[in-house]
Amino acid sequence: MHLLPFSLSLTLLLLLLSLSLAECRPDTFNKRQSHQIHPLRRQTGSAGTTTKVENLSCSSWQLAVETNNLRDWDVIPASCESYFGHYLLGHRYREDSSMVTKEAAQYARGLQLSGNGKDVWIFDIDETSLSNLPFYSKHGFGVEPISETLFDEWAAKGAAPPLPESLKLYKEVLSLGIKVVFLTGRTEEFREITALNLKRAGYYSWEKLILRKANEVTITALQYKSAERLKLTEQGYKIVGNIGDQWSDILGSPEGERTFKLPDPMYYIS
Amino acid sequence: MHLLPFSLSLTLLLLLLSLSLAECRPDTFNKRQSHQIHPLRRQTGSAGTTTKVENLSCSSWQLAVETNNLRDWDVIPASCESYFGHYLLGHRYREDSSMVTKEAAQYARGLQLSGNGKDVWIFDIDETSLSNLPFYSKHGFGVEPISETLFDEWAAKGAAPPLPESLKLYKEVLSLGIKVVFLTGRTEEFREITALNLKRAGYYSWEKLILRKANEVTITALQYKSAERLKLTEQGYKIVGNIGDQWSDILGSPEGERTFKLPDPMYYIS
Repeated sequence: MHLLPFSLSLTLLLLLLSLSLAECRPDTFNKRQSHQIHPLRRQTGSAGTTTKVENLSCSSWQLAVETNNLRDWDVIPASCESYFGHYLLGHRYREDSSMVTKEAAQYARGLQLSGNGKDVWIFDIDETSLSNLPFYSKHGFGVEPISETLFDEWAAKGAAPPLPESLKLYKEVLSLGIKVVFLTGRTEEFREITALNLKRAGYYSWEKLILRKANEVTITALQYKSAERLKLTEQGYKIVGNIGDQWSDILGSPEGERTFKLPDPMYYIS
Repeated sequence: MHLLPFSLSLTLLLLLLSLSLAECRPDTFNKRQSHQIHPLRRQTGSAGTTTKVENLSCSSWQLAVETNNLRDWDVIPASCESYFGHYLLGHRYREDSSMVTKEAAQYARGLQLSGNGKDVWIFDIDETSLSNLPFYSKHGFGVEPISETLFDEWAAKGAAPPLPESLKLYKEVLSLGIKVVFLTGRTEEFREITALNLKRAGYYSWEKLILRKANEVTITALQYKSAERLKLTEQGYKIVGNIGDQWSDILGSPEGERTFKLPDPMYYIS
């Protein structure tokens, strides 16, 4: 019953955020007023262009981040807040995500499955299955250092909308007979609220929901996730696909038969 | 003596190409005339924008290619020829490359080297050390399927200019006491002309220039290059860095201590 309003919530939230940001942040969003139709409306142009502030090309920074050339960065460059505001609240983030999940769905449809119920697809949660954009948009889209406490307060609400493209992929993957495993860096204390949030967002079932145990918080996400994937293969599962927004979701043996990297310019997890 | 004019050649070539393309390809480059100042001059705008033709976002396609989400593709989408013309001949390609090589240089400067003369950095050749843009710009920037014969004719001229950002990195790496190994998918019959081209372009010395042997043409570039890197480590070399424009340059164990992916939307090598 609650699925329809919830699936609309991301769109509505983004609309409201556009309006509130336009009003509250004239210093940031209006400084290039003369080139803009509306503070958070897309600007005209094409591939030959870039937003260049303080000799930094935000689009080059973004590409370097997405290709894993830049690593271990803390926050997005301050001069790129407006650039990423436009990117994330505009259609580009949606289109970039869609290109990835459509390719993933096409790959999934072409798979020769074992049919023994042991074929699984791994979905990361934050910025993959669920979108924390309503939270990050209130904190400069990654320009502010985010304390764990602050993010935990948001996660505890269980109110994150789905990333629409991933939800579509999830449904397609399930319809093909592939089981879904959620593998997240969130800790066990968030199991209940995370499960509730996933269901609210439309992810109604799964084979496993793997969260980080207390003794796993000192290792990197890459080490933790690789180890969990290894356990799955040892349990007889075949990881036919693996999708995440961080390179630490998809690097580290066993990666899965094929990996997919969703865009995320907001934060870096090693 | 010939280095100065040669290092200027890419700029001049691109200038000439801009002019010739503007004259020869009015069908392709002038169709969005109303939005353009000059057929191959950059258009105004920022991150909220995209060139969208036939429901395909060229920038999303580009990001998906650069992040290894799209694989085994043959040619760039026909509707994106103009987009990539602007990208490659404009400042974006240079800025994107520069972001990567600057990060690589910073990483190199921070290395604790063994000092035993066995620290090496691997450079791929085509679209990494040397730029074939003068060739590809005459063939639709990747929109045309390129026969091996056609490319070989170009390579046999030994006239490819350096990728300026990589040449700078090469010089910095050498100055730090790291040796350079060129590892290319070009075959042994191109050894002499490739060495000449590298020297002409400013790459005046190297530890090894590894080309593909006749019996290695049936395996993938990923397999061939991984195997060659393994041989290097078996010879006592430590691969401190590895840079290439294809994922097949930098995936496959041993990858090297750290890898760097340069942009290349023109072709895919598995």
